[in-house]
Amino acid sequence: MNREGNEEIALEFVDRLSDSLGFDKERIQHLFEKNYLARNWGKYEHLLRFDKEISHIEHGTVLYEKGSSFEFIMGFPKIRRAMVLYPTLKKHFNGLSKLAVEEKMNGYNVRVAQINGEILAITRSGYICPYTTERANVKLNLKFFDDFPKLVLYGEMVGPDNPYVPKAIYDIDSVEFYIFDIREKNTGNPLPTAKRRELMEKYGFLQVKSFGEIPLKTAPEEIADIIRKLGIIEHEGVVIKDPEMIFPPLKYTSSQSNCSDLRHAFRFYNEAGRDYMLSRIVREGFQTVEWNEDETEFKKRCMQLGESILNPLRESLRSVKNSQRLYEEVRIRVRNLKTASDFEDYLKRLGVDAVFEEPYSVGAEYLITVRKLNKSTNDKTQAIWEGELW
Amino acid sequence: MNREGNEEIALEFVDRLSDSLGFDKERIQHLFEKNYLARNWGKYEHLLRFDKEISHIEHGTVLYEKGSSFEFIMGFPKIRRAMVLYPTLKKHFNGLSKLAVEEKMNGYNVRVAQINGEILAITRSGYICPYTTERANVKLNLKFFDDFPKLVLYGEMVGPDNPYVPKAIYDIDSVEFYIFDIREKNTGNPLPTAKRRELMEKYGFLQVKSFGEIPLKTAPEEIADIIRKLGIIEHEGVVIKDPEMIFPPLKYTSSQSNCSDLRHAFRFYNEAGRDYMLSRIVREGFQTVEWNEDETEFKKRCMQLGESILNPLRESLRSVKNSQRLYEEVRIRVRNLKTASDFEDYLKRLGVDAVFEEPYSVGAEYLITVRKLNKSTNDKTQAIWEGELW
Repeated sequence: MNREGNEEIALEFVDRLSDSLGFDKERIQHLFEKNYLARNWGKYEHLLRFDKEISHIEHGTVLYEKGSSFEFIMGFPKIRRAMVLYPTLKKHFNGLSKLAVEEKMNGYNVRVAQINGEILAITRSGYICPYTTERANVKLNLKFFDDFPKLVLYGEMVGPDNPYVPKAIYDIDSVEFYIFDIREKNTGNPLPTAKRRELMEKYGFLQVKSFGEIPLKTAPEEIADIIRKLGIIEHEGVVIKDPEMIFPPLKYTSSQSNCSDLRHAFRFYNEAGRDYMLSRIVREGFQTVEWNEDETEFKKRCMQLGESILNPLRESLRSVKNSQRLYEEVRIRVRNLKTASDFEDYLKRLGVDAVFEEPYSVGAEYLITVRKLNKSTNDKTQAIWEGELW
Repeated sequence: MNREGNEEIALEFVDRLSDSLGFDKERIQHLFEKNYLARNWGKYEHLLRFDKEISHIEHGTVLYEKGSSFEFIMGFPKIRRAMVLYPTLKKHFNGLSKLAVEEKMNGYNVRVAQINGEILAITRSGYICPYTTERANVKLNLKFFDDFPKLVLYGEMVGPDNPYVPKAIYDIDSVEFYIFDIREKNTGNPLPTAKRRELMEKYGFLQVKSFGEIPLKTAPEEIADIIRKLGIIEHEGVVIKDPEMIFPPLKYTSSQSNCSDLRHAFRFYNEAGRDYMLSRIVREGFQTVEWNEDETEFKKRCMQLGESILNPLRESLRSVKNSQRLYEEVRIRVRNLKTASDFEDYLKRLGVDAVFEEPYSVGAEYLITVRKLNKSTNDKTQAIWEGELW
C-alpha cells in the first residue's frame, strides 16, 4: 500500500470517528498527534485508547470499529476519596437514605469484555494485557459474555500471581477476578448494585464483599467500625455507593492500607510520586483527629508511620550498599508459554525493565518468576553510596 | 519625561549592560521581559537582581550602576549536600589534606555590603529587606565597610527576632549576624577561611563556630561525632570547606535538623514542597545505614520521624477543626517605626499575607508581633472538614 492510499484510509477513518464522537476532524487529528488517542499494538492495533480524559470520556476508554460504526468501552470512573467520613458522606450523598458499602480490594483494575468475539482484559489505561486476558479466559464463566455481549465487567485481579500488585492477604492461591461494577458498552451506564450482585451470582462470578446497605445517618460510625476491622486484617478499605449508582461512589481506606502504600513507595523512593507519598501521610493525620484518638493510639500511629517509611528505605539502601540490585519479585501463572512471552513483550513496550526466569510446570500450568527492576532508585542510591551529591 | 525619552534611556542602559555582562542586547532584553533580570522597588529601584541563575551568574546576584560602569554583588553559591560522609568527602575534596569545618546555623541568609555609601542587607533572592537592613546597621561595626568597600559579608541572621526563621536555640536575645563568608564584589572571589576569621575578629564581628581544621582522612568519623553532638542541642549541622576556598563547600546535617524541617513542613503541609519533605526523609534513611545503627537506635529514629510528621499535622488539623486560622507567629524588633511599615509593604510586595500587631516599646526599640497566614493549608484543611473531597 502506498503512502497516499494510507492517508486516504486514515482520512476516511477520521471522518467516521469525527461523526461518532461529535468532535470536529481537526480535533481528532490533534488527539492522534498528541497521542491522547493512541492505538494498541500487534494484533490489538484496531483497539484505540484514550490516554487522557477528553471531554468527559474517561482516560483508558477503548474504542474500535463495529460494522460501519464504533463501539466504546468506557474507562474506570475515578472514585474520589472521602478524607473524613463526617460530614463528607452526608454532603456527597445528600438525599439518599441508604448507602451500599463494599470492600475495596487491593489488586489491579481490569475490565473484561467481549470484543469482536474475543474475551479481552483491558487495563485501567486501556491496554490489552495478554497475561490478564489469558487469566480472564481461564477463570471466568465465558457464557456470560455470550448472553450479555453489551455488558462490561469491571473488577479487580487479586492474589499472589498478579504481577502488578501481588498480595497474599486474601487467601487466594493464584489470582481471581472480583467484580465490583457492571457497565454497558457505549453509554458506560452502571447496573444498580443489587441487580449486579444477582446477575454475578447467577453466573458464579466472585464479587467484592458487601457490607450491606447502611443508613446514611449512621454511616460515618458504622463505616469507621468496618474500616477498623478491615485494618486489623491488613485489608484496604471500602467503596461507598449509591445503590442505584446515580451518585458517584466514594472511597475510604484504613490506616494499614496507607502504611502499606508507604512501605512500597519508600522501598522505591526515587520512582514513587511525591504527591502519592504526601497524600497517604496526610490521611493519617485526618484519621487520628477525626477518630479523636488518645495519646497511646496516637503514639502507635506515629511509630507505624515512621516504620512504614524508614524500614523499607533502610532495606533498599542496605541492599544497594551490599551491591544487590533493587527489584520487585512477582510471579505469573500461565497455561500457555506463548502468553508469558507475549507478556514479556508487552512489559517491554510499556517501558518496564523486567527479567523473566525459567518457567516451571505446576499441573497443567507454568509458574514464572518475574523481576521488575527499579532502575531509578537503584542508580540514585548507588551514586550516593559512591560519593555523589544529592 | 515622555515615553520616547524613557525608551532612549532604556536602550542606552541595555547597551552598557550588554557590554558589562558580555551578553548581546537581545539577550538582555529577553532577561528583562522574562523577569529573570528584575528591579527592586521604591528607593532601591536602581538595584537589579537576577531572579534565575544565568550563565554561571548565581540566582540573587545584584547589580547597579557605579560611575559609567556596573558593580556586581554575587549571589550565594549553592552549597551541595553530602548524603553520606564517606566516600563523599574523600571524592569531593580529593587532594586536600585538611578541611575547615564550621557550624551551619539555622537562620536567614543575608549579604551585607556598602552600596553607593549605604549599608544594605540583601536577601538570598536579591531583595533589599528593610528590616534586615536596619538590623545590620544597628548590629554591625560599620567601619569595616569604609575600610573595605569592595568586600561583601555573607552571613546568617539568627535569633528570635528573625521574622523568617525564628529560632530560640542559640541563646540570642534578639537577632545577630553570624558571618560565614567574605567575597569580593564583581568577581565573587572568597577569602580563605583563616584570613576571613582574622579579619572578622579584628572588627568584632560574630562568626559561625569553627570546629577547626580536620584531616581529610579522619573527617568522616570526626564530623559524624560533631554532628551527633550538634544534634543533641538541636543545632543544624556543618559546612565543610576547603580552607583555601578553591573547592566548593559541602553541607551535612543532623537528624534533629531533618526532623525540625519536617515539623515545620507538615504544620503547613499544603504550602511545603513535596521534594523538600522527601529529601529530609531520605536523609534519615542514609544516616541510619551509614552509621550502622542498631535496632534500638533505629526504633528511636522511626518514632522521631513519625512524630515529627504527625504531631504538627495533627496540631494544624485540630486548629482548623476548632475554627482557628493557621498562622505562624514571628516577631521583629525595630529602632524606627518607619522600618516596620516599610517591612510590611515589603512583605506585601512579596505576596506574604501578614498581619502586624501594635508595637510596644522596649528601651529604645519597638517589638512587633507579626502573624504570617498560611492560606493554602488553612483553606484546604477547612474544606476537608466541611466535607470536600481530596
